[in-house]
Amino acid sequence: MFMHNKRLQYTVRVSEPNPVLASLMLEQFGGADGELAAAMRYFTQGLGELDAGRKDLLLDIATEELSHLEVIGSIVAMLNKGAKAQLAEAAMEEAELYLSMTAGGNSHTQSLLFGGGPSLTNSSGVPWTAAYIDSRGDPTCDMRSNIAAESRAKIVYERLINITDDPGIKDALGFLMTREIAHQKSFEKALYAIEDNFPSGKLPGIEKFANIYVNTSQGEGDTDGPWNTGDQWVRIDDLDQTMPIDDGDGTASVTLAKNDAAVADKLAARTASDPESDPETGVDLGAGPGAGPITGEDLGGAEDIKDAAKMADAP
Amino acid sequence: MFMHNKRLQYTVRVSEPNPVLASLMLEQFGGADGELAAAMRYFTQGLGELDAGRKDLLLDIATEELSHLEVIGSIVAMLNKGAKAQLAEAAMEEAELYLSMTAGGNSHTQSLLFGGGPSLTNSSGVPWTAAYIDSRGDPTCDMRSNIAAESRAKIVYERLINITDDPGIKDALGFLMTREIAHQKSFEKALYAIEDNFPSGKLPGIEKFANIYVNTSQGEGDTDGPWNTGDQWVRIDDLDQTMPIDDGDGTASVTLAKNDAAVADKLAARTASDPESDPETGVDLGAGPGAGPITGEDLGGAEDIKDAAKMADAP
Amino acid sequence: MFMHNKRLQYTVRVSEPNPVLASLMLEQFGGADGELAAAMRYFTQGLGELDAGRKDLLLDIATEELSHLEVIGSIVAMLNKGAKAQLAEAAMEEAELYLSMTAGGNSHTQSLLFGGGPSLTNSSGVPWTAAYIDSRGDPTCDMRSNIAAESRAKIVYERLINITDDPGIKDALGFLMTREIAHQKSFEKALYAIEDNFPSGKLPGIEKFANIYVNTSQGEGDTDGPWNTGDQWVRIDDLDQTMPIDDGDGTASVTLAKNDAAVADKLAARTASDPESDPETGVDLGAGPGAGPITGEDLGGAEDIKDAAKMADAP
Amino acid sequence: MFMHNKRLQYTVRVSEPNPVLASLMLEQFGGADGELAAAMRYFTQGLGELDAGRKDLLLDIATEELSHLEVIGSIVAMLNKGAKAQLAEAAMEEAELYLSMTAGGNSHTQSLLFGGGPSLTNSSGVPWTAAYIDSRGDPTCDMRSNIAAESRAKIVYERLINITDDPGIKDALGFLMTREIAHQKSFEKALYAIEDNFPSGKLPGIEKFANIYVNTSQGEGDTDGPWNTGDQWVRIDDLDQTMPIDDGDGTASVTLAKNDAAVADKLAARTASDPESDPETGVDLGAGPGAGPITGEDLGGAEDIKDAAKMADAP
Amino acid sequence: MFMHNKRLQYTVRVSEPNPVLASLMLEQFGGADGELAAAMRYFTQGLGELDAGRKDLLLDIATEELSHLEVIGSIVAMLNKGAKAQLAEAAMEEAELYLSMTAGGNSHTQSLLFGGGPSLTNSSGVPWTAAYIDSRGDPTCDMRSNIAAESRAKIVYERLINITDDPGIKDALGFLMTREIAHQKSFEKALYAIEDNFPSGKLPGIEKFANIYVNTSQGEGDTDGPWNTGDQWVRIDDLDQTMPIDDGDGTASVTLAKNDAAVADKLAARTASDPESDPETGVDLGAGPGAGPITGEDLGGAEDIKDAAKMADAP
Amino acid sequence: MFMHNKRLQYTVRVSEPNPVLASLMLEQFGGADGELAAAMRYFTQGLGELDAGRKDLLLDIATEELSHLEVIGSIVAMLNKGAKAQLAEAAMEEAELYLSMTAGGNSHTQSLLFGGGPSLTNSSGVPWTAAYIDSRGDPTCDMRSNIAAESRAKIVYERLINITDDPGIKDALGFLMTREIAHQKSFEKALYAIEDNFPSGKLPGIEKFANIYVNTSQGEGDTDGPWNTGDQWVRIDDLDQTMPIDDGDGTASVTLAKNDAAVADKLAARTASDPESDPETGVDLGAGPGAGPITGEDLGGAEDIKDAAKMADAP
Repeated sequence: MFMHNKRLQYTVRVSEPNPVLASLMLEQFGGADGELAAAMRYFTQGLGELDAGRKDLLLDIATEELSHLEVIGSIVAMLNKGAKAQLAEAAMEEAELYLSMTAGGNSHTQSLLFGGGPSLTNSSGVPWTAAYIDSRGDPTCDMRSNIAAESRAKIVYERLINITDDPGIKDALGFLMTREIAHQKSFEKALYAIEDNFPSGKLPGIEKFANIYVNTSQGEGDTDGPWNTGDQWVRIDDLDQTMPIDDGDGTASVTLAKNDAAVADKLAARTASDPESDPETGVDLGAGPGAGPITGEDLGGAEDIKDAAKMADAP
Repeated sequence: MFMHNKRLQYTVRVSEPNPVLASLMLEQFGGADGELAAAMRYFTQGLGELDAGRKDLLLDIATEELSHLEVIGSIVAMLNKGAKAQLAEAAMEEAELYLSMTAGGNSHTQSLLFGGGPSLTNSSGVPWTAAYIDSRGDPTCDMRSNIAAESRAKIVYERLINITDDPGIKDALGFLMTREIAHQKSFEKALYAIEDNFPSGKLPGIEKFANIYVNTSQGEGDTDGPWNTGDQWVRIDDLDQTMPIDDGDGTASVTLAKNDAAVADKLAARTASDPESDPETGVDLGAGPGAGPITGEDLGGAEDIKDAAKMADAP
Repeated sequence: MFMHNKRLQYTVRVSEPNPVLASLMLEQFGGADGELAAAMRYFTQGLGELDAGRKDLLLDIATEELSHLEVIGSIVAMLNKGAKAQLAEAAMEEAELYLSMTAGGNSHTQSLLFGGGPSLTNSSGVPWTAAYIDSRGDPTCDMRSNIAAESRAKIVYERLINITDDPGIKDALGFLMTREIAHQKSFEKALYAIEDNFPSGKLPGIEKFANIYVNTSQGEGDTDGPWNTGDQWVRIDDLDQTMPIDDGDGTASVTLAKNDAAVADKLAARTASDPESDPETGVDLGAGPGAGPITGEDLGGAEDIKDAAKMADAP
Repeated sequence: MFMHNKRLQYTVRVSEPNPVLASLMLEQFGGADGELAAAMRYFTQGLGELDAGRKDLLLDIATEELSHLEVIGSIVAMLNKGAKAQLAEAAMEEAELYLSMTAGGNSHTQSLLFGGGPSLTNSSGVPWTAAYIDSRGDPTCDMRSNIAAESRAKIVYERLINITDDPGIKDALGFLMTREIAHQKSFEKALYAIEDNFPSGKLPGIEKFANIYVNTSQGEGDTDGPWNTGDQWVRIDDLDQTMPIDDGDGTASVTLAKNDAAVADKLAARTASDPESDPETGVDLGAGPGAGPITGEDLGGAEDIKDAAKMADAP
Repeated sequence: MFMHNKRLQYTVRVSEPNPVLASLMLEQFGGADGELAAAMRYFTQGLGELDAGRKDLLLDIATEELSHLEVIGSIVAMLNKGAKAQLAEAAMEEAELYLSMTAGGNSHTQSLLFGGGPSLTNSSGVPWTAAYIDSRGDPTCDMRSNIAAESRAKIVYERLINITDDPGIKDALGFLMTREIAHQKSFEKALYAIEDNFPSGKLPGIEKFANIYVNTSQGEGDTDGPWNTGDQWVRIDDLDQTMPIDDGDGTASVTLAKNDAAVADKLAARTASDPESDPETGVDLGAGPGAGPITGEDLGGAEDIKDAAKMADAP
Repeated sequence: MFMHNKRLQYTVRVSEPNPVLASLMLEQFGGADGELAAAMRYFTQGLGELDAGRKDLLLDIATEELSHLEVIGSIVAMLNKGAKAQLAEAAMEEAELYLSMTAGGNSHTQSLLFGGGPSLTNSSGVPWTAAYIDSRGDPTCDMRSNIAAESRAKIVYERLINITDDPGIKDALGFLMTREIAHQKSFEKALYAIEDNFPSGKLPGIEKFANIYVNTSQGEGDTDGPWNTGDQWVRIDDLDQTMPIDDGDGTASVTLAKNDAAVADKLAARTASDPESDPETGVDLGAGPGAGPITGEDLGGAEDIKDAAKMADAP
């Protein structure tokens, strides 16, 4: 059961309205790493959690994130307070209102559609979606997802701090940013308080595949590091020789029942392409007489381009 | 530059078609933790990465995930091969086709809309969205997100293995699951190969807020653990006394220019609610004569419910 | 600031697990009229509200809806408790797990992706989206939207009650349903406590257009009612004669600067269609020799169909 | 069956092109309260309606809204006519075109992706989604949703009028805005022409829960009003004492079959957290030597912040 | 199986950073006609394809599109390189960073959320969705969809070329644009290499309905062309006389079982509207005393508006 | 301006209710290739069209598609008529209603959320999105997109016909399917009535890149066909030798201003990975003692898997 106290967790003092800044702040209100995403990630995990300790932790932090949602939403509301009133009362000339709404960011939609209220969208106006929530019902996954989410929320707050020079907003954002650090610490403790937390789930991996590093991207820039080199890694560089990695031929097949096989053949025959054909096509019908080539020059003085002959020579 | 070899990384041998199972497998094709999400997470990070080592790592794994997308997609295609042909050729009676398509899962949409081809949806038919991608352009965030994503992909493969008894599919899923374990290991190495990786970003937190644990969820079930107890934590239990955590009064305010303030007052006055009123409402107009109460009994034999008097007594 | 007490607002007693029923209950957890939508609708309104009374009301009900989110989510968690454990521990045979997951509804995704935890999706697995939230920052709009939303939430609970015979679930749903009724009553009071609440906003309508009823759908079934008949309505039946309703000619035009006009002409000329042509098309290239007509009979014994001659006779 | 007359319901005269204004107008073309949303809300209701009168009403207004979609879309097309041609013919310098496309709002996407045609997106470029449609197949819900939707559409038109000084556009918007007022009136009549329209659906609420007001948000700002005070309300202020509101203990439980219970225990044991542990974590591995605190000063001259001691003193 | 070579298909030389231009380029990275959409359209088709020739073609082009995704993503990364560093290191004043991020387009979200990395969104920040993918598992549909998609991708590249004056970017875009032309040619060949490719699927149409043109939009502007005139078309102008086109009465009906019919009657009766009523409504309760009409003048000098009498005269 | 006649374009006679079939029919009501998508594709093109002939064509077909939306929606309403009434009146036992709602497909959501009314979702319950609309404001693109869309709509109707044995539904679907064929023919005529329709747009391609076929997918299955072989193609098989196709080195670069370059270096240094390190990681902390390998046998009897030695031998 939730209860609410009208005091905020952190006092919000905004120096002056700024709807464009408000629309940027939405990133942490209705954005992918914002406070609603955080609250709902932990809340949904908490409801399904079997372990008393983690359940308590998840509900504690979920509840705190709701309080942070309120803090950031209050910042947005304060930054929009002037624009909201001006538009509702039409107290400025049309042209002035138009200019104030198209000054940058996505503040136009905030004014037009949401009337200056804080909306659950990100800074581009994209509505919040539960697709942001990656709760999976396995505690070692979920704790890792929470750790990552806290580290992401931290960096977005840092970026918001870097673009704000209103001291009251900076203060509140500094508080919110720091709490993400504290939450990450808690989730790290909770992860490692599970004795056997790697790999996630119950099923171990197949040993011979667990230590392979497949060097799929090659050429200048191939680099060694502890992630692909050392005692615990077998690196595969020659994919042509080693793949497929099983004993098969690398194809996909299915055993069809007789009836299915016959019908599949019928379908294949009906839709077969004729490799010997050279059909007239829509392109032939539609390429007008003026369809000449453009040259590098047409494109604005670009430098000399590799000769077409080179391609023609390719085997 | 990408190149493709028609051999799969792992051979796919499916025993018999099963469109319902195919629709479940889509979770790892077009689902939130599926292979497209993995490939695109690492690929977008790799393009923006400044560090040669991590760039190489990200492109290696992104490319491998594309190969895994091909493996899981090939499993889907094989499981759907019979249904695809039967529907295209209408070789069964209408009623049979209808029954085969409504046998469970979301295979009906797979057949109707996608014609049995592998679609970039999850197992409920929800189209893949880049909202699943949490690349943030900060390597310590991104490596943590990748670690978490790999642990999630691992568990979904484990669940798919648990519901499949086709040995060829189990084999291929076992390979794919194990590769997620290997990738997690690589991303862990890459995270800790950054000397100062906590907290993410550059800005440190405000010290006094970094060690506080706010016990927002109270009552039976409150639990101690390393995430809220011990030397590094200051736990706040009495929120009423300690919040707001700053020196302010816990309200939100903004300094409005004179003109804005006047207009805001005008708006407030125009839309004020009258607390003294007892207005007739739409409910009064619309509650018909038959709107009696239902009792617990009406709801199907539910047990006695707390007396309303109790509520009336509440202060 | 939010606080949480581990007791639920209403005790949840579930008779036995039922993952399919759980997936239906999600409609009120992560669905369009579910508790998150309700909580967020009121919370976002409350943050931007200027009137003390409505602000208090909105935060009261927003907070209560979060508690209801917890109740319905707990029902889901209990209904899924068995399936969650069976899948995580793989304690049943693969085939049994497969059957239990494809027994109906969308429980397969709940198990596969969310591991039996309550997910913020609707009963079809569609992730919750803030597109459901219709807060507009004008109190007479917002109160009307809230009234409508409560009436919708009520009916969805009624439908869930109608398909459940577990007495403990029925009890809890009955409580939740009734609270929506109470909330509707509060929002009705709040709407009519604003003296001048119609139309929304500040700008009155243009009188002559405000009382017109345009009878755009005609034919058998045209019906009179208080919504289009009586002293306050002027009904337009002959659209051809009365439209456009202004003095213009019903076209759309814009005054282009000379340069724009010249370029627009150039574009029109370049992409003009030749009405006199009878071009060969892709259809001509592609219609194979076997493309004969199907008859009503081919479609399965359908009845006689209007003669093509009739169409040919049409002027 | 729909028919179309090339005359608009209202003549559109635009003074000069303005792609940024066009992108704002999209809010009523492809936005949440725009004309497509309106048309589709009523059309889907009309198709399923059993009452002849409401069915006629719904189809009348749905059809009119399609005509309004045409009017607002024509305004957009006229405002974009110059930009469309200039970009298609590349008749300006690259730099000029670039500047004209990044002058504000979301006109860049309108030009790049939609080529200046009216797109079914809102003013932020978010594609229209049927998630906006709240038809529920119960007429008392649906009429209330329609009333609310009309009041919202009215306010968005009002806001667009307030930012436009083109007289022809203002005229057309004034007409469209007023029609929403007329529609609201019709839907109100249709709602109250149902004798027993509250609560929605058939099932009455549980009497003792229908008159309770739960004062969940407390502190300075608690306000009385007709929505929580008076004869018809029992207000609960002391949640701790009165909740859960039933006779239970406020927990959630389910009766598991023996087998399920055993497996659930196994899962709990396997993933238990050890509350006594103080595990080393990723944070310990990753916090570099330079991770010092930031002070309020670092954040840009913010005022003095509550002493950490205060928190440490909390019980 | 995919492999990657660190060389790009086309060298990317960017003259100087420009985050706003970067955000426009995203249209072809994560937009509807962008390279990911292309790659995934062909890849999903290729996996399910039965014809060896088309399968090879689809995988060839899918793979090339991934390489193009890399090229366009690299352009984005280069254009963002300065902004990414400046924000991460906070090396500029807050106000400067704020200004640089709100200079136009959607670059603010690119910086805030994605940290300057290329994101899978379009130029408005809308996340890529698999709803863009229209693979249907029928080769004649799919080839037509591919042809159309290539023609769309071509035009978006053309528009990007038209707004760019950086020669290196123009070069690379010119290459990418031209490749779409080549791909369209290949897909045209593949379509017409299927002997019987029209209509799609196997079922022919009903002959008498296949040649009708229904002239549903009438009035000034009705135009003849090869699409509705000539030997192969029977045009219907008088819809009232010819519709429904079958022998029925143009209604919708279903045969209900007795029980269903009785219940449907009960529902209809319960929710019937009373056409004779003239109910008081919420509007009557809420229209305040000041709700006077606005005139054309209020709307800013609009011209005279058609007299209301005209409407009143309508039959 | 739209008008509506209550007669349908085609009479709908449904034999008996079937909510599961109804939910499948939604694919053409609110699905990607459904009638709303068609109507809106042509309507949005028509509004922006400069050519009188195409504008007329587009509005004709858009309007007809709205009439088809009504036909398919009426089929859905009839199929749901019984379920709608039964659930609204709760005239069956809870258990019966539960069973009827979970009988397959997505009919549960149709009943729960939409009350049996036709909803703008596809057959999986995914809400319709304007992301389906690919209008681009260039007529040669748009006509091609329309041709493709009609061919897709045709195949989905064919699939629906194949699973239905209700003769009245088959009749109506046969009509709708055939109209898509007719529309495709019209759009083909309109495309080729533009003299110069290939490539789309105005800018020609760069000649030397327009005729290259890049054979990116190699290995068994490489196939020749008119799409990659013949006089008009230069095929590139050796990518390593010929790529990048320009004269550059295949890298991406940008010229940074001095200040930007310095900051970028600082960022790179701060977040550099140490390739020489072998850091302890979270995996080391978390891999429990029981994390042994699984064998093929654990996975359920899978066949022998390629020896790990093979991988170890890889260079």
